[in-house]
Amino acid sequence: MTRPRALLVVTGSELVRGERTDRNGPFLAREVLEHGLDPARVTIVGDAEVELEAALREGLQADLMLTSGGLGPTHDDRTVELLARVTGRPLRVDAELEATIGAVSRSVADRLGRPYADFERGVRKQASLPEGAVSVGLAGTAPGLVLEHEGCLVVVLPGPPPELRRLWASALESEPMRRLLARARPPGRRVLRFFGASESSIARALEEAGGERPGVETTICARDFEIHVDLVVDPGAEREADELEAALVAPVEQWLFSRDERPVEEHVLDLCRARGLTLATAESCTGGLVAERITRVPGASDVFLGATVAYADEVKTEQLGVPPELIERHGAVSAEVAAAMASGARARFRADVAVGITGVAGPGGGTPEKPVGLVYVAAETPEGARGIDFSYPSDRDAVRSRAAVASLHLLRRMLTRS
Amino acid sequence: MTRPRALLVVTGSELVRGERTDRNGPFLAREVLEHGLDPARVTIVGDAEVELEAALREGLQADLMLTSGGLGPTHDDRTVELLARVTGRPLRVDAELEATIGAVSRSVADRLGRPYADFERGVRKQASLPEGAVSVGLAGTAPGLVLEHEGCLVVVLPGPPPELRRLWASALESEPMRRLLARARPPGRRVLRFFGASESSIARALEEAGGERPGVETTICARDFEIHVDLVVDPGAEREADELEAALVAPVEQWLFSRDERPVEEHVLDLCRARGLTLATAESCTGGLVAERITRVPGASDVFLGATVAYADEVKTEQLGVPPELIERHGAVSAEVAAAMASGARARFRADVAVGITGVAGPGGGTPEKPVGLVYVAAETPEGARGIDFSYPSDRDAVRSRAAVASLHLLRRMLTRS
Repeated sequence: MTRPRALLVVTGSELVRGERTDRNGPFLAREVLEHGLDPARVTIVGDAEVELEAALREGLQADLMLTSGGLGPTHDDRTVELLARVTGRPLRVDAELEATIGAVSRSVADRLGRPYADFERGVRKQASLPEGAVSVGLAGTAPGLVLEHEGCLVVVLPGPPPELRRLWASALESEPMRRLLARARPPGRRVLRFFGASESSIARALEEAGGERPGVETTICARDFEIHVDLVVDPGAEREADELEAALVAPVEQWLFSRDERPVEEHVLDLCRARGLTLATAESCTGGLVAERITRVPGASDVFLGATVAYADEVKTEQLGVPPELIERHGAVSAEVAAAMASGARARFRADVAVGITGVAGPGGGTPEKPVGLVYVAAETPEGARGIDFSYPSDRDAVRSRAAVASLHLLRRMLTRS
Repeated sequence: MTRPRALLVVTGSELVRGERTDRNGPFLAREVLEHGLDPARVTIVGDAEVELEAALREGLQADLMLTSGGLGPTHDDRTVELLARVTGRPLRVDAELEATIGAVSRSVADRLGRPYADFERGVRKQASLPEGAVSVGLAGTAPGLVLEHEGCLVVVLPGPPPELRRLWASALESEPMRRLLARARPPGRRVLRFFGASESSIARALEEAGGERPGVETTICARDFEIHVDLVVDPGAEREADELEAALVAPVEQWLFSRDERPVEEHVLDLCRARGLTLATAESCTGGLVAERITRVPGASDVFLGATVAYADEVKTEQLGVPPELIERHGAVSAEVAAAMASGARARFRADVAVGITGVAGPGGGTPEKPVGLVYVAAETPEGARGIDFSYPSDRDAVRSRAAVASLHLLRRMLTRS
C-alpha cells in the first residue's frame, strides 16, 4: 500500500530568485510526512502566469496539492485565478466572504485615512473563489481554501509563514482533509544524534546493519557538525526498525548523544538543572554565540547566569582575571588562556560550571603557528577541568559555529560522565 | 527580448521531506539571475525514480537546466542515469574519468583499510556519462557535468553546497555555458534598506511612484524587521530606474539607512571605526545575540572590545555595577536598568560606545505590567545617552531578534547623527 502523494507549490518572486529562502515548503513537507502522506515534490515558482499555471496543473495529478502564496489583493497575485483556470471552474464572488473581507478592509482604510473605494476591487478579487472551493479562514484579507477536484484535494494557503501555519491547522480540520487522512498511514519516527563520528562511519555502520529494511526509511545527514540519523517507520515495521536501530548503533554507540531532537545546548541545561548547577561562558572567537545558543532555550535563566565576551585582551585580563603574563607567554589563542578564561568565568560569576573559548576565526589574524581555524576550548565543573583543541581551516562563520558546537559537547560529556 | 529561461532541479530525500532546508536552489537562482537568465522554477524532489525522472524531463524544456545532488556512488543516486534516459543518450564509461575517480577511491580505500574491490562498482558508475556529456571537475568522486541536448544546456552539480559552488564556477567557464551567457542580459541591481517604516508604507510609496516601470522589476520584502527593496534593472532602463528610485525614496527617506547590502552591525562598526571609537554591549534578554552579530563581521576586533551577558540580576550588579536598589525599585526589565547596563558596560570595558538591553523574551516571565515582548534598550556614546522601548508580543526567538535589531539601529542612528 503506497501513501497518498502530496505536491507542494510555493509561489513568490523573491523565492524563485533566491532572494529569500522558502520556509513554507519544508514546514508543509514535514507536516505532510507526519500525517502519513508522501511529500513527493516541492515546486517553487514566481508570479509569472505561465510558470505558476504549469505548476498548478501538475499539482492536480497528486492526491493532495498544497499551495503557498499569491493570495494578495493585487493583480500579480494569481494563485486563485489560475487554480480556477486549471480546474476549469468558474470564479464566483462568495457574498458572505465579501462581507467579511470588506469589514477588515474598511477598518484598514479608516486606519490609513484612505477611501474604502481604493480597496473595493481587491476585496472583490479576494472574495472570488473557484466553484466548489470553501474558505478555511482569513489571513489578513486573504482566505485559505480547500477544493476537491477529480481525486485531488487542493489546499490554498497564504505566503507569510505564521499565517500559513494557522490556516494549515484549520485546513487539517476540514471534512475533505479528514477523508484524505483516513487513507494515510502516519509513520513512526526515530531519531539518533551523533557527535564526533564522521558521516561516512555512520553510513558504513548503517550499511553493515543491513541498510534500509522494508518499511524503514533512513536518512543520514551532517548538520551543525553533528550526524543526524532519522528513521521513518511504517506501521507494522517496528520490529524491523528495532533490529536496524540496534545493529546500527552498536559499533558507533560511543558517539551517540541523543535519541530525541533536543539540541545539545538543551542537553547541557537539562544536565545542569538535574544537579542544581549554574553555568557561565567566557568567549573570545565565538563572540557570544555559545551564550546566545544557550539562552535560545526557554527557561535557560534557572541555570545560566551570564557570559563575558572577551574580544580584546584587556577584557580577558580585567573581566576574567586572565594573567597578562599568560597571554604574553602563550598567546591569547592557547590552551592556557582558554583554561584561565573558564576558571575566571567560574570565579567571577560564582558559577558551578564554565567554559572558555579562544581561537582564530579568520579571515585575518592567522599566523604559521596559530593558523585560521585553530580553536582551544576548556571547561570546568565541580569535578574538574578539561581542555580540547582542534584545527578547522574554514570560513569565519564555520569556525565560530564549530567552536560553539564543540564547546557545548565538551560540557555535555563532562556533565554526563560525572 | 526575453531572457533565457533556467530551471533548477534539486534532489535529496531529506530536502523534499523538509528535514533540511535547501541552500543550493537559492544560491543557483541568484547566480542565474545575476548572469542575466530568468530563474523560472526550482523543483525539489527526493530519490524516487519516477519523481526525479519527471523533473528532469520538464527541465529539458528550458534553455538551461541545473541539477543539484544525486551523484553519489550508490544505486539510490540516480541523477546521471535518469538524465541519460530522458535525453535518450546511452551511458558510456569515460576511461579517463574512470582512472581519475579510481585513483581517488584507491586512496580512500587505503585510508579506511578496505579492499579497493568494494569501490570498483561505484567508480564505474560515477565514470559513466550520457553520450556527449563532459566533466567539469570532481567533487570527491562525483564529476560535475555539462551536456547540450536539443537546445537545452544541462549542468549537473553535486549536492554538498561548497562542492556545488566550486563546480558551478568551473561550469561557468565551459564553452557551452559561455555561448549561452552570450545570449543573456545581466541586469543591474539596486538595493534600498529601510528601518522603522512598515512594509505597507513602503509598498504605498512604490505605488505612488508609479509602481514598476518597463525594464525595472521591484521586490519589497520584510526581513529581520527591516524592509528591503530590490530593483532589478534591465540594460537600457537605468533612467527609468533612477526616476522610480527617486520618487520611491522621497516620502520615506527618513527611514532609509542603506543603499548597499551591509547588515546594520557592519554600519555600526564602520561608523565607530571612522571615528576611532570602541564598542561594548551589555545584554540580558538577547543573551549575547548583539555581540554575536557584531563579531560575525570580519575585522570587528578593531572596534569591538567585548560584552557582558547579564542574565542573572547578581551579574548585572556585580559585573556591570547596576545598583541593586535600581533593580529593586524599577525591576530588572526597565528603562533605568537598561541605561545603567549601558553606562556600566561603557565604564567597565572603558568603551566609547555601549548599549544595554533588557526585556521579557518569554514564553514565561511575563506579568501584567511587564508582559512578554516588552524590551528596553539604552545606548551611550561620547555625545550622550538615549533610550527606547517597545512591546512586541511574539515568540522568544522573534522578541530576541527584534531586540537585537532595534539595539543595532539605535547605535547606528546615534552614531550617524553625532
